[in-house]
Amino acid sequence: MGNNKSALVMSAHAADFVWRAGGAIALHQKAGYDVTVVCLSYGERGESAKYWKKGDVTIEQVKRERRKESEAAAKALNVHDIQFFDLGDYPLEMDREAKYRLVDVIRKVQPDFIMSHSFYDPYNTDHAYVTKALLECRMIAQAWGHNPGEKILGAPQVYLFEPHQTEQMQWKPDVFLDITEVWDQKRAAIECMQGQEHLWNYYTNLAQNRANHFRRNSGGQAGGKDAKYAEGFQSVFPRTVSSL
Amino acid sequence: MGNNKSALVMSAHAADFVWRAGGAIALHQKAGYDVTVVCLSYGERGESAKYWKKGDVTIEQVKRERRKESEAAAKALNVHDIQFFDLGDYPLEMDREAKYRLVDVIRKVQPDFIMSHSFYDPYNTDHAYVTKALLECRMIAQAWGHNPGEKILGAPQVYLFEPHQTEQMQWKPDVFLDITEVWDQKRAAIECMQGQEHLWNYYTNLAQNRANHFRRNSGGQAGGKDAKYAEGFQSVFPRTVSSL
Amino acid sequence: MGNNKSALVMSAHAADFVWRAGGAIALHQKAGYDVTVVCLSYGERGESAKYWKKGDVTIEQVKRERRKESEAAAKALNVHDIQFFDLGDYPLEMDREAKYRLVDVIRKVQPDFIMSHSFYDPYNTDHAYVTKALLECRMIAQAWGHNPGEKILGAPQVYLFEPHQTEQMQWKPDVFLDITEVWDQKRAAIECMQGQEHLWNYYTNLAQNRANHFRRNSGGQAGGKDAKYAEGFQSVFPRTVSSL
Amino acid sequence: MGNNKSALVMSAHAADFVWRAGGAIALHQKAGYDVTVVCLSYGERGESAKYWKKGDVTIEQVKRERRKESEAAAKALNVHDIQFFDLGDYPLEMDREAKYRLVDVIRKVQPDFIMSHSFYDPYNTDHAYVTKALLECRMIAQAWGHNPGEKILGAPQVYLFEPHQTEQMQWKPDVFLDITEVWDQKRAAIECMQGQEHLWNYYTNLAQNRANHFRRNSGGQAGGKDAKYAEGFQSVFPRTVSSL
Amino acid sequence: MGNNKSALVMSAHAADFVWRAGGAIALHQKAGYDVTVVCLSYGERGESAKYWKKGDVTIEQVKRERRKESEAAAKALNVHDIQFFDLGDYPLEMDREAKYRLVDVIRKVQPDFIMSHSFYDPYNTDHAYVTKALLECRMIAQAWGHNPGEKILGAPQVYLFEPHQTEQMQWKPDVFLDITEVWDQKRAAIECMQGQEHLWNYYTNLAQNRANHFRRNSGGQAGGKDAKYAEGFQSVFPRTVSSL
Amino acid sequence: MGNNKSALVMSAHAADFVWRAGGAIALHQKAGYDVTVVCLSYGERGESAKYWKKGDVTIEQVKRERRKESEAAAKALNVHDIQFFDLGDYPLEMDREAKYRLVDVIRKVQPDFIMSHSFYDPYNTDHAYVTKALLECRMIAQAWGHNPGEKILGAPQVYLFEPHQTEQMQWKPDVFLDITEVWDQKRAAIECMQGQEHLWNYYTNLAQNRANHFRRNSGGQAGGKDAKYAEGFQSVFPRTVSSL
Repeated sequence: MGNNKSALVMSAHAADFVWRAGGAIALHQKAGYDVTVVCLSYGERGESAKYWKKGDVTIEQVKRERRKESEAAAKALNVHDIQFFDLGDYPLEMDREAKYRLVDVIRKVQPDFIMSHSFYDPYNTDHAYVTKALLECRMIAQAWGHNPGEKILGAPQVYLFEPHQTEQMQWKPDVFLDITEVWDQKRAAIECMQGQEHLWNYYTNLAQNRANHFRRNSGGQAGGKDAKYAEGFQSVFPRTVSSL
Repeated sequence: MGNNKSALVMSAHAADFVWRAGGAIALHQKAGYDVTVVCLSYGERGESAKYWKKGDVTIEQVKRERRKESEAAAKALNVHDIQFFDLGDYPLEMDREAKYRLVDVIRKVQPDFIMSHSFYDPYNTDHAYVTKALLECRMIAQAWGHNPGEKILGAPQVYLFEPHQTEQMQWKPDVFLDITEVWDQKRAAIECMQGQEHLWNYYTNLAQNRANHFRRNSGGQAGGKDAKYAEGFQSVFPRTVSSL
Repeated sequence: MGNNKSALVMSAHAADFVWRAGGAIALHQKAGYDVTVVCLSYGERGESAKYWKKGDVTIEQVKRERRKESEAAAKALNVHDIQFFDLGDYPLEMDREAKYRLVDVIRKVQPDFIMSHSFYDPYNTDHAYVTKALLECRMIAQAWGHNPGEKILGAPQVYLFEPHQTEQMQWKPDVFLDITEVWDQKRAAIECMQGQEHLWNYYTNLAQNRANHFRRNSGGQAGGKDAKYAEGFQSVFPRTVSSL
Repeated sequence: MGNNKSALVMSAHAADFVWRAGGAIALHQKAGYDVTVVCLSYGERGESAKYWKKGDVTIEQVKRERRKESEAAAKALNVHDIQFFDLGDYPLEMDREAKYRLVDVIRKVQPDFIMSHSFYDPYNTDHAYVTKALLECRMIAQAWGHNPGEKILGAPQVYLFEPHQTEQMQWKPDVFLDITEVWDQKRAAIECMQGQEHLWNYYTNLAQNRANHFRRNSGGQAGGKDAKYAEGFQSVFPRTVSSL
Repeated sequence: MGNNKSALVMSAHAADFVWRAGGAIALHQKAGYDVTVVCLSYGERGESAKYWKKGDVTIEQVKRERRKESEAAAKALNVHDIQFFDLGDYPLEMDREAKYRLVDVIRKVQPDFIMSHSFYDPYNTDHAYVTKALLECRMIAQAWGHNPGEKILGAPQVYLFEPHQTEQMQWKPDVFLDITEVWDQKRAAIECMQGQEHLWNYYTNLAQNRANHFRRNSGGQAGGKDAKYAEGFQSVFPRTVSSL
Repeated sequence: MGNNKSALVMSAHAADFVWRAGGAIALHQKAGYDVTVVCLSYGERGESAKYWKKGDVTIEQVKRERRKESEAAAKALNVHDIQFFDLGDYPLEMDREAKYRLVDVIRKVQPDFIMSHSFYDPYNTDHAYVTKALLECRMIAQAWGHNPGEKILGAPQVYLFEPHQTEQMQWKPDVFLDITEVWDQKRAAIECMQGQEHLWNYYTNLAQNRANHFRRNSGGQAGGKDAKYAEGFQSVFPRTVSSL
């Protein structure tokens, strides 16, 4: 992966990385990171209603359309690499082989941080499933005895990106990221999701409101950075620092 | 307060800032911060058993002894300023006047961050009381209508330092600070606490074990920074960043 | 299913629907709902001690006896339909096929609400397992791409009925249902459970005490509805209303 | 209060009832409820930065301006009655007399439901303080021995309206209310808050996104009510019903 | 207090100790403990509806009646000492003087364990208030500098007895006590509460059902102690043992 | 198993039982219990870095070395029986056969208590996996219909021993065990773990600090048992007692 810093973004379905982490992706690419996205499924069964409603369509066609959308969005975000595991959705399941495939990616990317879904989601069990599997794969990637000789993984932070209906998901952000300078890219990526136009405005509203939270926490009425768009994340592990 | 960065450390009783934040204090002083410590009480009634056991001692004498210890410890940590509010302990209570006095300090210090006790402590109700009052005072210090004309407070992070028996206190650290380079200062400050010698070894063990946690989270078996002593803190508010 | 409103009740073992939701079932049947019960197992291994203690009995005999009891109870409650999946118990496991079978039932019933076990049960892991699987199946039933052409599921509420030792199960009721008018039916259904007579009085006591909670929350000392027997439920999802 | 149904809305500061419950107020007024709002303070010290920044202003002038805004907003929402307790803010405190004054209002209104702030708010301690005091007053209003002879209170639900940064406030909505038909009134009330124009767009975004949650929970992709604007609430007490 | 073991039971209102800890009291008296009960109020305003409904009664009369009931119940339970602080109820408040009075009792009793209310109760704020104050008084009683020369308190366990509607109170029992052998005494004490006859059956049902939980946890279907009546308690502090 | 009392200790990897429960094991052996340890894996892939770093080693060699260490440690602790299931690690998985094998052990041992890992561990998913499986196996062992004729299991307590970084694991000890008299044995067992020398000092510090907690909770400044080394445990189930 060269000498660049790097990051890995998990996406249960084809579009998750766009809504939830598009700003972080574009921003870190701009800052010199190599960001890899792994789409475990295309969301072909559960998140492609628009295509199915047309009728007379096969699952392969739906997958193809969803892949096109994701690739276009990845391009808008300047993603370094996007990989499709095509594991199926609703439900999404990872067997030992799929987990080892993910371990391979993790070890190859050697990410400085990883992004994934919330720990809990009673509406969409694929989401929590992914993060559970990711933590297992992170552990395997750290094992000296797994494929001995390979470079093992360090201890990268795992950030849980924002789920839909945060309060129902027991998700609590502990860091807000100013994505103002890459907002145009995120909006362009969002608009690649032709099948989910009803969410474009939703995620724009959200980014604006998270910017309000950013401003409030970076200085409040006394000043602070004037972010216009932001994303929030929940950290899984403690940080280690030399200064607060 | 000049142009330096600054920090404020709350201490319910005379010695709390030493055990729980001594490393952070010395480290940030070394890095150019002006760190102010506010001891709300001397712990004269509840944390001075050694003096009381001698018998034939007045509360003023105990307070004097405890103050001496704290001042010596503050000196060892190179504290910028230490203030004693002398509000009494077991129980510690702050009336409106005491709160406004603390607001004055907060506004004068304009801290980049504040440190205080855990939210909950069924053993020692003074501890949680202080943090509850601090949050109230932080809010007042932010109000344009409180002493109009004064510079209002921004939105400094509040770090909850490590309580005794963390698991009973619902305290969960989200950041570990490497205090290796100032450990000698912290140990020297600890040894100023003549009345609580039984805790010297306890907090040394703790700092070593927190360093193990630091190493584990900064790289694990794959490497990471080789901290020998560390302190842990729990953040009350989300961070705002421009890069993860 | 005709034009009636409908409900679906999950039952890990043969008798769960009786103790925990018998009143709700009878009441909604009376109000014109079609209530379907799915017994995933007969509780033949883990909840049939009475039969095993006799000795000289086969598992098929135990299952037959338990089925008889359940069918009699279902009749007492006037259940619209009861289905036995016979998946085995202690432990109960659902493979992909069993889940799709449940999805079929869900889509056919198109329930206005679903009932299931608590999220957590350290005594009986079958219980939480069922609800986890149910949420997965609810998600699949909502997917346009699962068996395209079928009518997909809307967003029915899931009510978690009352587990044994509620406090150990992290279960918190947010709605109490007055079952006074169908209590005789519930008691009759309870008495069909010949193998668990030690629980008859337990669940009668419970229904009386829940009625006390009902009265207290419907008006307290100022009045309120005079329920004699009640059941409690925990809602998984938020309600959507046009008036509070 | 005549024979109408009624509701009571607590507002720590002058504008809280507008942002957080404006839709519920207008909607229930329209449905025949008499809604009373109690503003415990004008938010004159902590939430009137715009006025203080002008300089050369007295606290009485600020209170007068804030009151005008609140009264205009109340009018836009068609509030039945608005009362100003003028208890001061940042911090807000209620002595025994103030609590008994609130008990008097509660008993007079005999609300079918009450609205108040979230249980927890580390940014703004006034908010949680109000709800803590409200629960105490609700209890007093239920006591036969408090002002014997007066009509005592029943057991009205308490809804916690939406705080700023919900996830930091441990607030979880369990009911969404469709406020589409009164949105124009809420927006008009919002625009009465001349001192906080930076929040107009914030709360409009929020209402639109809560409507997305409403739609998702009332039927999802299978249909459901097409709400355009919504508000969310957290119930403190269990509901009591005769049908689910 | 002689050489007996001893216990202290807090009771916010006159009858709380009966419903919630009557079995534990009678059982430990029988085992040689000296059990002291402190009734902080008579529950004269909030829990004496029966008396107020008669009309034409003064608060002093109500207090006298309630005291009689409590004394009779205490006698039935063979309580060693019952003290009435007469602090008022709905709301109950303890000033510094009242707290020191309680500290005096604690130091005099030197209890091996203390019993009190749940940490949280949104229905009845007096309850949680008492436990909060108790923890403060426990801390003061441990302070060498409070009334120097007196024997200080050790570290007695605090057991939270069972509140009404446990799940709403965030109360979780971790110990069940078999009270079968003193049940008759508890029932007799319960029947002393003439003003709350509607609760007699409630607490009898409860004791029977807690015995079911006792049996289930002491051996389940494999045997175990055959308790007929039990009480549950939540421990505040960890236990210290020499064997598990 | 004769007439001795007995205990069962689960160990995900070869060394877990040593660090986390070594004192409890040695102490109960000394007190006449027969303690059986089940090592589900050798930790050969994930917790044997020292061996892998040497290079030119096979997994069988690593397993052999780890087994030797564990057996030596078991001997130092005077373990009654140690069994190696050799299920593999990172990840550890138990199929139905492995679970039944564990059920067989549980039924044979008929433990008075069981020890296992914390419920949650985002660093090491093997740990939580084991406890989840253990609860399932405990349930199966209680089922009269599982291998009818065998002696079924009662309701033994499950103690969760101390994980690394307790606060991140949502682990809260409710009992501290004084292990002073067997500390030399535990230290000797620890020193058998040649591959993890960096943890020797860590767990010694920890045992000393837990002894501080023991002393504090057994009497505090007023006295109490003078433990020098202790271990902490979290109970899964409520206790049942005849006296508090």
